[in-house]
Amino acid sequence: MTRGDPRTTPANQRSVRRHNLGVVLRHVADRGRRSRAAIAQETGLNKTTVSSLVGELVELGLLRETEIELRGTVGRPALPVELGGEGVTGLGLEIGVEHLAVRAVDLTGARRHQSSVARDNRARPLEAVLDELAQLAGDALAELRVNGMQTAGAVVGLPGLVNSDGCLLVAPNLGWTDVYVPDLLGERLGGPAFPIRAENEANLGALAELWQGAGRHFRNFIYIAGDLGIGAGIVVEGELFRGAHGFGGELGHVTVDPEGDLCACGNRGCVETRVALSVLLRTAGLEPHAGADQLAERAQAGDEPAIAALADAGRWLGIGVASAANLLNPDGVVIGGCFARLAQWLTPGLERELADRVLSAEWDVPRVVGSELGDEAAVRGAAAAALRRVFADPALVAEL
Amino acid sequence: MTRGDPRTTPANQRSVRRHNLGVVLRHVADRGRRSRAAIAQETGLNKTTVSSLVGELVELGLLRETEIELRGTVGRPALPVELGGEGVTGLGLEIGVEHLAVRAVDLTGARRHQSSVARDNRARPLEAVLDELAQLAGDALAELRVNGMQTAGAVVGLPGLVNSDGCLLVAPNLGWTDVYVPDLLGERLGGPAFPIRAENEANLGALAELWQGAGRHFRNFIYIAGDLGIGAGIVVEGELFRGAHGFGGELGHVTVDPEGDLCACGNRGCVETRVALSVLLRTAGLEPHAGADQLAERAQAGDEPAIAALADAGRWLGIGVASAANLLNPDGVVIGGCFARLAQWLTPGLERELADRVLSAEWDVPRVVGSELGDEAAVRGAAAAALRRVFADPALVAEL
Repeated sequence: MTRGDPRTTPANQRSVRRHNLGVVLRHVADRGRRSRAAIAQETGLNKTTVSSLVGELVELGLLRETEIELRGTVGRPALPVELGGEGVTGLGLEIGVEHLAVRAVDLTGARRHQSSVARDNRARPLEAVLDELAQLAGDALAELRVNGMQTAGAVVGLPGLVNSDGCLLVAPNLGWTDVYVPDLLGERLGGPAFPIRAENEANLGALAELWQGAGRHFRNFIYIAGDLGIGAGIVVEGELFRGAHGFGGELGHVTVDPEGDLCACGNRGCVETRVALSVLLRTAGLEPHAGADQLAERAQAGDEPAIAALADAGRWLGIGVASAANLLNPDGVVIGGCFARLAQWLTPGLERELADRVLSAEWDVPRVVGSELGDEAAVRGAAAAALRRVFADPALVAEL
Repeated sequence: MTRGDPRTTPANQRSVRRHNLGVVLRHVADRGRRSRAAIAQETGLNKTTVSSLVGELVELGLLRETEIELRGTVGRPALPVELGGEGVTGLGLEIGVEHLAVRAVDLTGARRHQSSVARDNRARPLEAVLDELAQLAGDALAELRVNGMQTAGAVVGLPGLVNSDGCLLVAPNLGWTDVYVPDLLGERLGGPAFPIRAENEANLGALAELWQGAGRHFRNFIYIAGDLGIGAGIVVEGELFRGAHGFGGELGHVTVDPEGDLCACGNRGCVETRVALSVLLRTAGLEPHAGADQLAERAQAGDEPAIAALADAGRWLGIGVASAANLLNPDGVVIGGCFARLAQWLTPGLERELADRVLSAEWDVPRVVGSELGDEAAVRGAAAAALRRVFADPALVAEL
């Protein structure tokens, strides 16, 4: 048995050690490849402790020794360590209005599994949707197992209001209410050892952009998840902002036209009634199932109705985002979801409304950028979020 | 010289002691009157240190020994201490569109000076407004000095965008731009020893409601400062939310009617164009300078145009607040400023729009309440905010 083995260490010492495992793992994640001596110096932990902690993290597959030798000032060569990709994965799942997606990533952020299917989930029963997602997730877990990977957790992104118990209270564009998606998926997966959490898909998209995409450049931004619905994730000082009970960020239901069209949510004149992809396709004279790619192709080819539809949507989106910017004073606005492909035609109108309608625009207009992760943001955010618990408590990997 | 005297203590010891003075003062502020022994036990500082720290805080007038003896279990009777009101005051100042106000409070929250004047500040030059406010502030400082009180700081509330340097960038309803109010007031006060800060008046109102008023019941709320302009202060998890550069909370410039009336800010259809007091008075058939009291009297007497004007304003305010609630998911909405007196007529329309337009309303509709502090909230918040630096570093009082 190695020093620090959980089976031979008293309880309170073990809890301190468990905490310190997280300190070391997060330090390497934040700062990159480095020697044990550097970790000791930078964290204030003593060298012997760091060596032992690193040893345990290497055994768990969470850190690995690199082949590059960095020589210390005296004594033995110090083999630097970096995040290891062999130990564990996070599983991201997504139920979109028109697709299902699965993605597994390891601790280095590398993709270990990916699948997605285009499906009109409005047109079929809830059970069929959950069965198919569980099938895709089961295939992913089987492949990961074959490759010797553990799964630390799963997060499922949903297009609606999700409460802290993981209940999808309402998804207006799916027509679903009060669905305990994590429980229903867990049953279909035969009660996996890892926890399954549910989260609003726009919140997950915002986290993915913050960690890996266009949000890296901002501390405070509004991420717009544009698709058949319009969601948003709000990032404040580098953290996801959820509101009192997790129901914040509903940009799609900000009123832009009080006497306007009826929205799927039952109200009138929401941003969604003017800006959703279905509205754009109709205004552009395209079929309801044409999709964002076809709309982008038309606009690229100079098709007037397509360009006009996008310009009009950009203007209405801008009115809603300007209201949000007056309240939230963000640095940036990230146009994401399938709107990422449409950003170049949406942006001019959006920027004009921000310049006109944000009181502080003369001094501080938010910068509008396209998403770097596009449609994949939510499921990427879900997979990365599923790994957060490993960074919080690396020792849990031994218990999987 | 007493033990712990700043003149006889080495620098690094003094900085630790200075920090601990704040720990003890804030502990008594948060938890109320208590013995030195209780402070020692609860803060983890040793009894001798606490006795010495309490001694210094008593000398500074920030704590006082109470006359009620609480007997300890053994030994000498322990005289409990509580916040002292004799040492120091915070000075709150306010430039409203139609008034000026000054208020000084001591550490116990007791009012030590108050004055206000009704003035139409739109109708006169900036210099005249600043001269008069400086006169009122000077009178306050003179009275405080006569009563043996020091002033630790001043905060001035302003009806517009204030940047982190204290520059009033724009106050649409005053027609002012780029005014360094703290500097201009400081010159007029002959360069006082204490710092002067500027802050948006709705933010100060929100803080006052959070610390002393209707906001005590909420962790997350939107405070509406209704007057000739409509401002808002947003409180998230018990802290003021400012946005990336301090320009958040501009509820008055949330768009509710994109093709609507021109606003003082230059845009169309802002909440202010539908809900400002001037609009209410006009719609109710009252003179422009009638004021909220007269409107409330009319409504109370059953006057139909007054009631209809208030109902309509409540509805439009509700459309704007519903957009804010969709984004921010607050627990509560506090109707403040002069709208506090009109809250009973504004609330039904506001609540109806929240119920209709907030996506999560079925599970979690924000509670709408009237302000407890009314028109005084901003200047009360300013005075209390001016004392924050004493709680952060009590020893600065010795340097005033």
